[in-house]
Amino acid sequence: MSEEHIKFRPSDLQEFSTRVFMHFEVAQKDAEQASEVLSLADVRGIDSHGVARLHTYFEMLTLGKINPRPDIKIVRENKSVCTVDGDNGLGLVVGPRANEIAMEKAEQFGSGWVSVCNTNHYGIASYYSLKALERDMIGWSMTNSTKLVAPLWGGQRMLGTNPISIAFPGHKNPPIVIDLATSAAAYGKIEIAKRKKQPVPRGWIIDKEGQMSTDPNDMIEGGALLPLGSERELGGHKGYALSAMVDILTSVLSGANWGPFAPPFALRQEVPSKSVGKGIGHFFGTMQIEGFMDVNEFKQRIDEWIEVFRHTKPAKGTTGVLIPGDPEHLEEAIRKREGIPLIQPVIDDLRDISRQTGIPFNY
Amino acid sequence: MSEEHIKFRPSDLQEFSTRVFMHFEVAQKDAEQASEVLSLADVRGIDSHGVARLHTYFEMLTLGKINPRPDIKIVRENKSVCTVDGDNGLGLVVGPRANEIAMEKAEQFGSGWVSVCNTNHYGIASYYSLKALERDMIGWSMTNSTKLVAPLWGGQRMLGTNPISIAFPGHKNPPIVIDLATSAAAYGKIEIAKRKKQPVPRGWIIDKEGQMSTDPNDMIEGGALLPLGSERELGGHKGYALSAMVDILTSVLSGANWGPFAPPFALRQEVPSKSVGKGIGHFFGTMQIEGFMDVNEFKQRIDEWIEVFRHTKPAKGTTGVLIPGDPEHLEEAIRKREGIPLIQPVIDDLRDISRQTGIPFNY
Repeated sequence: MSEEHIKFRPSDLQEFSTRVFMHFEVAQKDAEQASEVLSLADVRGIDSHGVARLHTYFEMLTLGKINPRPDIKIVRENKSVCTVDGDNGLGLVVGPRANEIAMEKAEQFGSGWVSVCNTNHYGIASYYSLKALERDMIGWSMTNSTKLVAPLWGGQRMLGTNPISIAFPGHKNPPIVIDLATSAAAYGKIEIAKRKKQPVPRGWIIDKEGQMSTDPNDMIEGGALLPLGSERELGGHKGYALSAMVDILTSVLSGANWGPFAPPFALRQEVPSKSVGKGIGHFFGTMQIEGFMDVNEFKQRIDEWIEVFRHTKPAKGTTGVLIPGDPEHLEEAIRKREGIPLIQPVIDDLRDISRQTGIPFNY
Repeated sequence: MSEEHIKFRPSDLQEFSTRVFMHFEVAQKDAEQASEVLSLADVRGIDSHGVARLHTYFEMLTLGKINPRPDIKIVRENKSVCTVDGDNGLGLVVGPRANEIAMEKAEQFGSGWVSVCNTNHYGIASYYSLKALERDMIGWSMTNSTKLVAPLWGGQRMLGTNPISIAFPGHKNPPIVIDLATSAAAYGKIEIAKRKKQPVPRGWIIDKEGQMSTDPNDMIEGGALLPLGSERELGGHKGYALSAMVDILTSVLSGANWGPFAPPFALRQEVPSKSVGKGIGHFFGTMQIEGFMDVNEFKQRIDEWIEVFRHTKPAKGTTGVLIPGDPEHLEEAIRKREGIPLIQPVIDDLRDISRQTGIPFNY
């Protein structure tokens, strides 16, 4: 973090979040679950998805736009697969419950696949894939989200940044944790460039005519993010296709709102012109490793994979190859020791919640 | 096709391929299966994966490097998941059989997931996802392949172009067919640029030091392809992570050779320094749509998705948004009517096979 910050203990932030959720009549175990998801983002250094988002959840709950006491239900099912209706609960509660259902199915049928409708923003995608590792399963997680990304050759926002996560356990090594948005860059980076009055790299954004731009204002004022690959020549159609895959598995298949109709996470965002389903959508998959291979053998093979890839000859002028999940793993070690650095605007948001709810924020 | 070509009837090419496989004692139904996979590539316009590859299969069979009569077996299993050993058979035979097992599992358990070792090049990834559509299933398909791609910040080839395919059925519309290599560009495009003595776009390749280059010779002489996203700033770490995912699901999980140890498809390619498993690996997944949602409702939702995305406001200066699978669908209609255009070097290869085997090639 290059901006000024103050450090907080993860447990303190987690306790505060739990109390905020409970203030809105969220059941204690659900509130604890929701703040656990936020906390993992903070601990792993994914600042955009941790307590920095608490004020948005707070606003949505204040306005009654999220159901604090959802009746999360399987609405259709066939052994290893099912659809879950999240009853418009917090994604931070619906997501973990649906992921749990996927894991229960994997215990019973070798794998479990759950498409979820009527849900909301679920935090970091890798929370879910990491959970599966605790049971010696391979876990997948995807979600759709508010439109920000143009399909290749499109001149408007049609898709969310639609992330894909999957994780694989190591034996002596920490797990390989893949967690990627299917856009070329994160929206947060465009906002930062705007604040700093700096251009963004060519390939991140288009303006409202659909033309490449390096001015962050062009994207913010009616333009869009580009999919991974950026342009046709560099594979922008592939990033678009991956984003489409996430949109369909999470939302067409579950009965949620897909594509441009995904409802906004934050109040300031545009409300879609129509609804084609319920809420946003998630998709979870889990597979028992034992069904394919002895778990220890698999973990040892992953260790060897990690070691071979870490020892790739480095490209000249770089620090060499990382393993997916390395940066977050490193950050986790530091932050567990030194605390979570929060910038002043986030602290101000938390103090604002404290003022409005009466929950003390004295850390 | 911009180069000069002669057109052939798909059924003629398919018949010739079948006879070539049978010449090597491949069982008739396996030979027919293998040539069906090749033919679909030709019909859908994926020229690099059709009869243009027959000479390579022919060489491998001639030298006894592929088992014409494999005993394809499930070696480990837990209800919806299993590992298959392809007994070093043709990937064009092992792949369809393993995909069939995935579909049988989906009939029984709602979904089926099969990791495959001891196999060889399996043709186009979308052959398999399209097969699942015939049974109202969503089908996934992945394979690893000979090293050509550098992980981000690596200076050497470590991964194959590792494709991912998934397909979704429409109601009135043709299916959405996603089939993408996880590299920024295909190796074939580098070879074409070399032949034409033209530079390639920045972002496709690195030289043997790991530095970006636009000279195709730099890649061919010890350099590598870049992953989708190309460089760090544009998300090259994401393409690398997706390629890693494919490598692990197909080959670490099945007991095949992963990463740089994947054996070469063609004789001219470098043989890896060591073996960490058996053959290359595939991964197939199938999910019964009915387990999530009424099939007709799903297909109608896909139709609506297609129509909404097709009507995206076009980016200025482009022809507008395509649906994944559109180009291949269009090509299929043309080629079924007009035939498969083959360039002279491919025809020469087929004539060479004809000369060596005595199987007539008089089309």
